[in-house]
Amino acid sequence: MTKIAIVYHSGYGHTAEQAKAVHHGAASVNGVTAKLISVADVDNHWNDLDQAEAIIFGAPTYMGSLSAPFKGFMDASSKVWFTQGWKDKLAAGFTNSGSQSGDKLNSLVQLMVFANQQSMIWVSLGLMPGNNSSKGSANDLNRIGSYSGAMSQSNVDQGAEAMLDSDLKTAEHLGRRVAEVARQFQAARVAA
Amino acid sequence: MTKIAIVYHSGYGHTAEQAKAVHHGAASVNGVTAKLISVADVDNHWNDLDQAEAIIFGAPTYMGSLSAPFKGFMDASSKVWFTQGWKDKLAAGFTNSGSQSGDKLNSLVQLMVFANQQSMIWVSLGLMPGNNSSKGSANDLNRIGSYSGAMSQSNVDQGAEAMLDSDLKTAEHLGRRVAEVARQFQAARVAA
Amino acid sequence: MTKIAIVYHSGYGHTAEQAKAVHHGAASVNGVTAKLISVADVDNHWNDLDQAEAIIFGAPTYMGSLSAPFKGFMDASSKVWFTQGWKDKLAAGFTNSGSQSGDKLNSLVQLMVFANQQSMIWVSLGLMPGNNSSKGSANDLNRIGSYSGAMSQSNVDQGAEAMLDSDLKTAEHLGRRVAEVARQFQAARVAA
Amino acid sequence: MTKIAIVYHSGYGHTAEQAKAVHHGAASVNGVTAKLISVADVDNHWNDLDQAEAIIFGAPTYMGSLSAPFKGFMDASSKVWFTQGWKDKLAAGFTNSGSQSGDKLNSLVQLMVFANQQSMIWVSLGLMPGNNSSKGSANDLNRIGSYSGAMSQSNVDQGAEAMLDSDLKTAEHLGRRVAEVARQFQAARVAA
Repeated sequence: MTKIAIVYHSGYGHTAEQAKAVHHGAASVNGVTAKLISVADVDNHWNDLDQAEAIIFGAPTYMGSLSAPFKGFMDASSKVWFTQGWKDKLAAGFTNSGSQSGDKLNSLVQLMVFANQQSMIWVSLGLMPGNNSSKGSANDLNRIGSYSGAMSQSNVDQGAEAMLDSDLKTAEHLGRRVAEVARQFQAARVAA
Repeated sequence: MTKIAIVYHSGYGHTAEQAKAVHHGAASVNGVTAKLISVADVDNHWNDLDQAEAIIFGAPTYMGSLSAPFKGFMDASSKVWFTQGWKDKLAAGFTNSGSQSGDKLNSLVQLMVFANQQSMIWVSLGLMPGNNSSKGSANDLNRIGSYSGAMSQSNVDQGAEAMLDSDLKTAEHLGRRVAEVARQFQAARVAA
Repeated sequence: MTKIAIVYHSGYGHTAEQAKAVHHGAASVNGVTAKLISVADVDNHWNDLDQAEAIIFGAPTYMGSLSAPFKGFMDASSKVWFTQGWKDKLAAGFTNSGSQSGDKLNSLVQLMVFANQQSMIWVSLGLMPGNNSSKGSANDLNRIGSYSGAMSQSNVDQGAEAMLDSDLKTAEHLGRRVAEVARQFQAARVAA
Repeated sequence: MTKIAIVYHSGYGHTAEQAKAVHHGAASVNGVTAKLISVADVDNHWNDLDQAEAIIFGAPTYMGSLSAPFKGFMDASSKVWFTQGWKDKLAAGFTNSGSQSGDKLNSLVQLMVFANQQSMIWVSLGLMPGNNSSKGSANDLNRIGSYSGAMSQSNVDQGAEAMLDSDLKTAEHLGRRVAEVARQFQAARVAA
């Protein structure tokens, strides 16, 4: 079995919904088991991260970058960094915020730079943008037009239950894509 | 008079519309003259840039960063960099692309890093995000939710005439804001 | 008097030395009072931040971005963001890490994006790079070659007392530069 | 055979030396053929890029981001983007500038964002930083302390022949690492 871990923080439940969708996508791939880990509970799961072929990171964008609780996890992973314990694992990312752009790209870049410090290999979203023509709409997959990872937007006056289906399907796509690449990559490692 | 220069590149006319809106906003401020300069014509205007209190930079986002013709202008400005000729001038930026996020933030960061190399002072957009609640819409000012500069989105199957009024008004706001800060800044320089 | 606030986090004392140098530079300017605030103590100082003409932000770069305790402060400032309480204040930044590049630019970009969310105006370092020719050395001012803010590098096996004088003088320069621009800017606000 | 392509621009020869070192590293891996392509000549090599398992991108950092000629190549690749012709290929990057940091990270981020638009998979440098302790020196591998790709620094008053061996060995490492990952990845694709 190819193991995937999704580590996330969520302040008000929106990013948790996104994380569940990523998890659902990853778990839907044959030969893959996926584990959904909240940063609040990560100290019970460092071993799961060690054993994963791919780790998918996600957090809300607060004030232009990843939320502080998620950064706490990133800083704690410096222990792993010293021994380069995640070297050559696959990585990917997702983030949510209240506005369309909302500087979410800065959070994904922050995750990429972090993954590179851990000597990981970054898997892009792998979708063309939607919602970018006169016939497009917010119902399109990848309606925000992201490439470096999955983005979602949640209205600031609504709860997680109002999240757009298109954003959750985009997150699900990311999980599935990473799982497929991870399965392939692991097969090659075993064969090597 | 406080002088403002807007230097821009436009591939298909969308960013030119945005640039005109920025220019209109800047020129609307009392005591300010604003000059609109296409990068194709910039070699006739290095002197205007030298004399400006603020320079506002704009280009489309192509493949995740500023268009090559605009980068050509940035590279040519290394002559100015050697003598730090733009030191302490104000700077600001705008960009257009076909999708909502479309990595436009990366272009604005590229402009900020560039402005910092020129020892300039960066003026943010100064608007709260629109289009981020159940009552919001694409007609809101700053509907894309940008902070570092003005963003616009233009449908890939439509010309510049179809650009959203809200995006052009957001660009106009940026021009006006920079002109107001520049006028204040210049008054301070004269008084010092 | 023109008020400057320096808000910083330091894990092992290196960034605290850098912060002190920034403070020293700012306080050396006539007509300026500068306050040095640790993020651990920031809850006693929100009022000082409200009254400052400029806020200079600094933190170590951990795992490629600003340390989690500093991000906690940034997230807490979302209360200020709602009312845009820091709008039009000047901002600047500094960061330290164990290696030469060490992704410190990512931390400065994170600070710039944050400052833009707060509708602030970003002051660049304003120094040409040192240590970039056959006659240069690590004793040069701005030996790391930064533009967006002040960078320092501290050896991972040495304490804060071993920090290079050139890095501290670069930090001091940033404080002085921001104070001078702030004094000028404030005079203009009063005159307007 | 696993095919690797290195596409680069060089203004004064320094980045060309770095590109040669990357090429040498890639070509040293069993079962790999590597092709070195100047952007000036890229129009004869789009087919080579199509057939490569991995493409390594490199250019000097001018005024804080990739050189304009290299950006011209990136913009021209929008034809590939429309059909997602490089989807799932591996990508990596390198850059040179005159100062230690010199905003080179911004160029590597620009390349990562670009590679993500092309739905590629980004391979990090995979080296711990050198030159970051009291016993370190500029002779250390990865002396600049980069993670997202290979960085080199060349003195502004010296030609390419004066480039540090440590920087070239770091570039060589990147080429070798990408080739090894590419070989593994290709084996997995064939087996799938």
